[in-house]
Amino acid sequence: MGSEIVEVAKKAKEASYKISTLSTEKKNKILKRIAEKLDEKREYIKEKNCIDIENAHKKNLSSAMIDRLTLSDKVIDSMIQGVMDIIKLPDPVGEIVRMWKRPNGLIVGKKRIPIGVICMIFESRPNVVIDAGSLCLKSGNAVVLRGGSEAFNSNKVLCEIIQEALKEENVPAEAVQVFPTTSREAVKEILTLDEYIDLIIPRGREGLIRTVVENSTIPVIKHYKGVCHLFVDRDYGDYEYASKIVVNSKAQRPGVCNALETLLVDEKIASEFLPKIIEDLKKAGVRIKGCEKTLQIVKDIEKAEEEDWETEYLDLILSVKVVKDMNEAIEHIQKYGSNHTDGIITQNYKKAMEFVERVDSSAVLVNASTRLNDGGVLGLGAEIGISTTKLHAFGPMGLEELTTTKFVVFGDGQIRE
Amino acid sequence: MGSEIVEVAKKAKEASYKISTLSTEKKNKILKRIAEKLDEKREYIKEKNCIDIENAHKKNLSSAMIDRLTLSDKVIDSMIQGVMDIIKLPDPVGEIVRMWKRPNGLIVGKKRIPIGVICMIFESRPNVVIDAGSLCLKSGNAVVLRGGSEAFNSNKVLCEIIQEALKEENVPAEAVQVFPTTSREAVKEILTLDEYIDLIIPRGREGLIRTVVENSTIPVIKHYKGVCHLFVDRDYGDYEYASKIVVNSKAQRPGVCNALETLLVDEKIASEFLPKIIEDLKKAGVRIKGCEKTLQIVKDIEKAEEEDWETEYLDLILSVKVVKDMNEAIEHIQKYGSNHTDGIITQNYKKAMEFVERVDSSAVLVNASTRLNDGGVLGLGAEIGISTTKLHAFGPMGLEELTTTKFVVFGDGQIRE
Repeated sequence: MGSEIVEVAKKAKEASYKISTLSTEKKNKILKRIAEKLDEKREYIKEKNCIDIENAHKKNLSSAMIDRLTLSDKVIDSMIQGVMDIIKLPDPVGEIVRMWKRPNGLIVGKKRIPIGVICMIFESRPNVVIDAGSLCLKSGNAVVLRGGSEAFNSNKVLCEIIQEALKEENVPAEAVQVFPTTSREAVKEILTLDEYIDLIIPRGREGLIRTVVENSTIPVIKHYKGVCHLFVDRDYGDYEYASKIVVNSKAQRPGVCNALETLLVDEKIASEFLPKIIEDLKKAGVRIKGCEKTLQIVKDIEKAEEEDWETEYLDLILSVKVVKDMNEAIEHIQKYGSNHTDGIITQNYKKAMEFVERVDSSAVLVNASTRLNDGGVLGLGAEIGISTTKLHAFGPMGLEELTTTKFVVFGDGQIRE
Repeated sequence: MGSEIVEVAKKAKEASYKISTLSTEKKNKILKRIAEKLDEKREYIKEKNCIDIENAHKKNLSSAMIDRLTLSDKVIDSMIQGVMDIIKLPDPVGEIVRMWKRPNGLIVGKKRIPIGVICMIFESRPNVVIDAGSLCLKSGNAVVLRGGSEAFNSNKVLCEIIQEALKEENVPAEAVQVFPTTSREAVKEILTLDEYIDLIIPRGREGLIRTVVENSTIPVIKHYKGVCHLFVDRDYGDYEYASKIVVNSKAQRPGVCNALETLLVDEKIASEFLPKIIEDLKKAGVRIKGCEKTLQIVKDIEKAEEEDWETEYLDLILSVKVVKDMNEAIEHIQKYGSNHTDGIITQNYKKAMEFVERVDSSAVLVNASTRLNDGGVLGLGAEIGISTTKLHAFGPMGLEELTTTKFVVFGDGQIRE
């Protein structure tokens, strides 16, 4: 088995040299072929997907899991739309980010290049093969994929489609590959192939991501969790304005990483604001866990324990805490936050600016829903994930974050004196 | 011991929040005080340094090692100059790299912020404390340092000086700290403190760096080695022009990572170029190890073995290989190179451009010495190291590479639909 895994990574490295210098036109042509093939081969895709779904039923997997696994016509349509959207995005490769001249006459530039070989380690949703494959191709990277065993056949058929498109354009099919095994030992082996793989992006449960971080000798970009906060300042302004932001942050889609998990409320306005917002949140189906002070103001809610402040519920549950002022709010975020998405609701200019300055999260928002921290919404085009690692990419990762820069130096005989 | 290590990292994290928002003026004032104190306290520094030197003699350390350890007046002068140079560099923190408006009215910006807490793991030279400490301070980062045991007292006294300067400016002294122990177990523990430390920069032997990479759950920026290449193309032009670049790349300072290790020569010019360049290199004291074809042209040199192509000699030794053409040269670099520094000598425009496009090293040079891949020479000001990791920083790391960007989002009630 070992040699099979190495072989995949090695071939990906070789293919990466070809892929890295393709013209934008050529890459878009391949992407267009992928979109066409997804449409033409719907029945074949669904047939292969069926094998995984049947196995899932046999293994009694949850209906939510089977739902994530299913490649319906609707999911296929959205994959096709995703590829078409990526075609429209500008190609980041080749951009000279800056260029300058040194006193000795050297011309020095920083040129944007693909990272090389990217490895995605993910769970359940097979559409990651198409999303990640297309983003990596457009940014000139080779990609190797290791999905969950429950989606093995689905991942394979989607990869096959990409490889056909590559071959038809005379580009090495090894630019996009699925590892031939999904075992845990295989993952551990993959994580040591730093000679061939340049970056690992894990997506899934915190446990999976921790395993990757602990065992990888390859750089990893990840986020463990999103414990997102909103601080409602004493100068929050209009109630409807604030409440719309809070409710949307928590309830619009509670199962995702940028959903609100903790609401911090300024003491000065707690007794008038809390009863109203808790009622509105309850109407939206949210269960509330409050701190001591919150419980003094609103009675019929649960008590928040210490561990609640660091919990990502991913559900219609919200912890609520009364804080003395913005300073205490920021300190709470520094202590319990996950550097993901945090915001303030205020009409006070000075406080808005100070909050933005002092909170070191991947996205810091003023008067807007935490749900807006998303590559698409913020204008990066598609995103391959959100990073809370402060290195390389911090926040949503789009095409540009799938590249790096190298120094290009044009000389005319310069030497070191 | 464990808790002591954790305590240092934890205090660094707390200090990092204060340090991250200091004004440029304040940071420069601290740096100026450091420079002044280094000057005033020369005798005290040398006294503490003496303890390490005496211990080194007792342990029979090599004279080269003792030399690296010694804080002479000359070394102190150059540390002072280094700090003064860093004062003059622009402060990267706070820059809005880009800012744009979304269709829903959101104003989205990418703002440059410090990384947080940086850990330097290094060997022998105590001046790293001042260099790294000053660069981290200027870029708003806290730093924790773990030097070699042989330099423990020297590292401590230099850190003490920085801490005095911090205290006098009412900034938490914990912004710059030396770990209280240098044991191997301490290093392994440091490498797991991802809750407090954001980045590890190891500097030293390949073995040390590999240990760091294998055991760290914190992102690492590093280079293992610099196996640097120059390819002399058939259209290299004037002999003197080419030879000056080759000899400088190899012999100007052979013990450093950007020194030339392998010379690749185009077959078409091998028989006229090789005898002359090998003679010139020998005059500069360089020992030559040639491939089969090189040996057919020049007799009295050693034979290069397979392992020579991947060896970083760090010495006056050079491996020489004849290649069919530029394509074979690039393939050799892809196979044996270390993504560090590689160059071409050519007067052919098309080949220069293709070489720059296809070689994925941190610096790719045309008609210039490999020794020029250096933060100072390329215009970044000071450098904290050179990275061959393709993530975050690829090539020399200056102040800007000690920062990251966060998304700042100014809204007016926007929610996710």
